[in-house]
This record gives sequence, structure tokens and C-alpha cells, in this order.
Amino acid sequence: MTVLLEIPANLVEYIGYFGSFLTSITFLPQVYKSWQSKSVGDLSIWMIFIVLTSTIVWLVYAFAIHSGPVISANLVVLVLTLVLLYFKLTFPKK
Amino acid sequence: MTVLLEIPANLVEYIGYFGSFLTSITFLPQVYKSWQSKSVGDLSIWMIFIVLTSTIVWLVYAFAIHSGPVISANLVVLVLTLVLLYFKLTFPKK
Repeated sequence: MTVLLEIPANLVEYIGYFGSFLTSITFLPQVYKSWQSKSVGDLSIWMIFIVLTSTIVWLVYAFAIHSGPVISANLVVLVLTLVLLYFKLTFPKK
Repeated sequence: MTVLLEIPANLVEYIGYFGSFLTSITFLPQVYKSWQSKSVGDLSIWMIFIVLTSTIVWLVYAFAIHSGPVISANLVVLVLTLVLLYFKLTFPKK
């Protein structure tokens, strides 16, 4: 395979961890905004369902390959998305 | 390392592809809903910024490790998130 990017292996690993960290906190500002506004009408519940499903799939994958960063990232996403789902189901529609 | 899940290697790979697929389409229902409603007030722009940043970080990572599934998943997420950003910046606030 063609080498597309020549980055030291160590650095690649750190980049992966940074990506995992960012992915973990993706829904943090959304949870905060939704909590403040108590308004989630514009959020797609299908997006939430897809995130929940993908998180569970990724967790199975991550346990199978023993990937700590993928496990922890997806656990955080799972919790934040469950909070969003709770908001979506309980906040009054406007 | 403890083997937490005993899944055949082939199957693990397919689970990874399925996770990539689901992650790719995460923002598809959100783009559709936002396009239909022309309303994105409840969406956190910080969520969008974090997704954009993480996507770029993952793309660097994926090119470095030559991971086709991670590259393609993140390209799709990048495009869908740019569409959401465009909506967020152009749809009138309600």
C-alpha cells in the first residue's frame, strides 16, 4: 500500500488518542445547550438512535480487539447520548 | 491481556465495518430533519465544531495507518457536518 502520510508511530498513536478524546466529548456541548434551553425539538431522534446503536457496535468491536481508547470513548458517548435521549423524551415539545 | 470476548477475527472485522457504516450516517437524519424544518436553533454549534475537528484528526490518523474504512467514514461525516454548519449559519434564528 502506498504510504500516504509519513508520521512516527508514536505520534500516530497520540493522534488516535486525541481523536478518541474529541469523539468522546462530541455531545457534551449539545447536552449542556439542551439542558440550558430545555428545548430539543430540532434534534433528530433518529440521529440519537443511530449513535446509540453505533456505540454498542463499537463497544463489542473494542472489547474484541481490546482497545482501551475505543472502549472509553464509546462509553462516554453512550452516557451522553442516553442523556440526550432522556431530554428528547421528557422535555415538552414547543 | 485478558480475552474479554471470543469472536472470530473475520466477524470482528465485519463488526468494525458495520460500526464505521453507522458512524458515517450518524448525521444523515439530522441533516434531513434540519432541511425539512429549516430550524436548527436547538443544535449546538460547539458540537458541530468538535465533530469537524475530530473528523480532521481522525482523517490524519486514518491516512497514517492506511485505514480505508476510517477514511471513508470520516469523509462522509465531514461532508454531513459541513452541511449542518451551513444550515446553522444561514437558517434564520427563530
